[in-house]
Amino acid sequence: MKLIHDDERLDDLHRKGYRILQKPGAFCFGMDAVLLADFAVVKKKEQVLDLGTGTGIIPILMQARHEDASYVGLELQPDMADMASRSVLYNHQEQSVRIVQGDLRRIRTWFPPASMDVVTANPPYMKAPAGLTNQNEALTIARHEVECVLSDVTAAASDMLKFHGRFYMVHRPRRLVQILEELRRVKLEPKRMRLVHPYYNKEPNMVLIEAVRGGGEELRIQPPLIIYDAPGRYSDEIYRIYGYERKD
Amino acid sequence: MKLIHDDERLDDLHRKGYRILQKPGAFCFGMDAVLLADFAVVKKKEQVLDLGTGTGIIPILMQARHEDASYVGLELQPDMADMASRSVLYNHQEQSVRIVQGDLRRIRTWFPPASMDVVTANPPYMKAPAGLTNQNEALTIARHEVECVLSDVTAAASDMLKFHGRFYMVHRPRRLVQILEELRRVKLEPKRMRLVHPYYNKEPNMVLIEAVRGGGEELRIQPPLIIYDAPGRYSDEIYRIYGYERKD
Repeated sequence: MKLIHDDERLDDLHRKGYRILQKPGAFCFGMDAVLLADFAVVKKKEQVLDLGTGTGIIPILMQARHEDASYVGLELQPDMADMASRSVLYNHQEQSVRIVQGDLRRIRTWFPPASMDVVTANPPYMKAPAGLTNQNEALTIARHEVECVLSDVTAAASDMLKFHGRFYMVHRPRRLVQILEELRRVKLEPKRMRLVHPYYNKEPNMVLIEAVRGGGEELRIQPPLIIYDAPGRYSDEIYRIYGYERKD
Repeated sequence: MKLIHDDERLDDLHRKGYRILQKPGAFCFGMDAVLLADFAVVKKKEQVLDLGTGTGIIPILMQARHEDASYVGLELQPDMADMASRSVLYNHQEQSVRIVQGDLRRIRTWFPPASMDVVTANPPYMKAPAGLTNQNEALTIARHEVECVLSDVTAAASDMLKFHGRFYMVHRPRRLVQILEELRRVKLEPKRMRLVHPYYNKEPNMVLIEAVRGGGEELRIQPPLIIYDAPGRYSDEIYRIYGYERKD
């Protein structure tokens, strides 16, 4: 089997020499996924499921940090699932990371209910556009609610989680009201939240949320996560999360 | 009529020479009220209602900033309502600020439905304690949900607001999920939110929310409002809001 196809790119993850395959123009992971993988808490021996895993970035990064847990990434698009599987093989992570091709709207086809300790998701942020063009379908599916809407994602997460299991999601702040409402509707109580701001004096463009299956009512909001200290200069926290060394 | 009682204190508001009566030990306004008065948008000729006005601080401060509007403050506790009325008289604001003693759970006794452009509230933050002591009842009512719970406040606001009227509230971030849920339940759509952090790297201790009666779904989260730049040193924004001049 050829691990890298001609239209793919192999990128360094700055963790244990791990790399990831991406397909420029189709779908590359964003900072969102990296922040979510850092925000999520994973404990020893836990079973972790990533919904709509795309390139596999989230389980691959989480496994690098918490080796003593088992990860599954579910991905709808066959090409994407295949690429994610080859990244796992490239990194020799196949003992603890498994990629499954399937639709999260029929999640019980692959996994029994209440079988996961942790579920993660970096779902499409945008509502489905009215006039869909067929150009670049992979990208459209990843970014727009074409194949799944927010309530499909929260329903699947709730169904898969054990009692007191944890759900981690990254999304757009402007949809926060709907997000919190959908979570609570499926008994995933929002417990921890962090807003991500490009600069400390700018509006946030991402929100990280932890919700607990059957959790009690009380939300902890953390200090803002700031991307840039100054134009072109990442904050110390971004350096830490990406595992880069500060040189300036 | 004696404007200042012996157990009261007259404090400077740093606006047009306005002052406010407070009763040390009973109830003094906090930074919450000052931030809410600044966060709220009031336009010319608008009719504004403050629910549970306490010392009257919110309408008094808002009137100082937007003179060309009419304000009513509703307060349950007769002593408090009387003190607020005397502050209004002291400042010669009686042409545009009116204090009404009454219970927001029977709001239609005093005002017709859909009669307000703006409603503000700095409600009790804490759930009613299980074993209530009778010590300092005024303070207990102001801080705990003894006389009114969150849903009483949101219901009154929704009932009083015109279509597309605006509701402004300050509350504790840990209750955010319930707040957003209650607002949406009474057709007050959360549209703008700001978290208040003591320092930029600390968790927020207040949340400011604007909700619009019958508004469309989309929340704007603003940059964090930071209280202190450094220990003991207020941020420029706090200086601006309080109307103090920076001397350091």
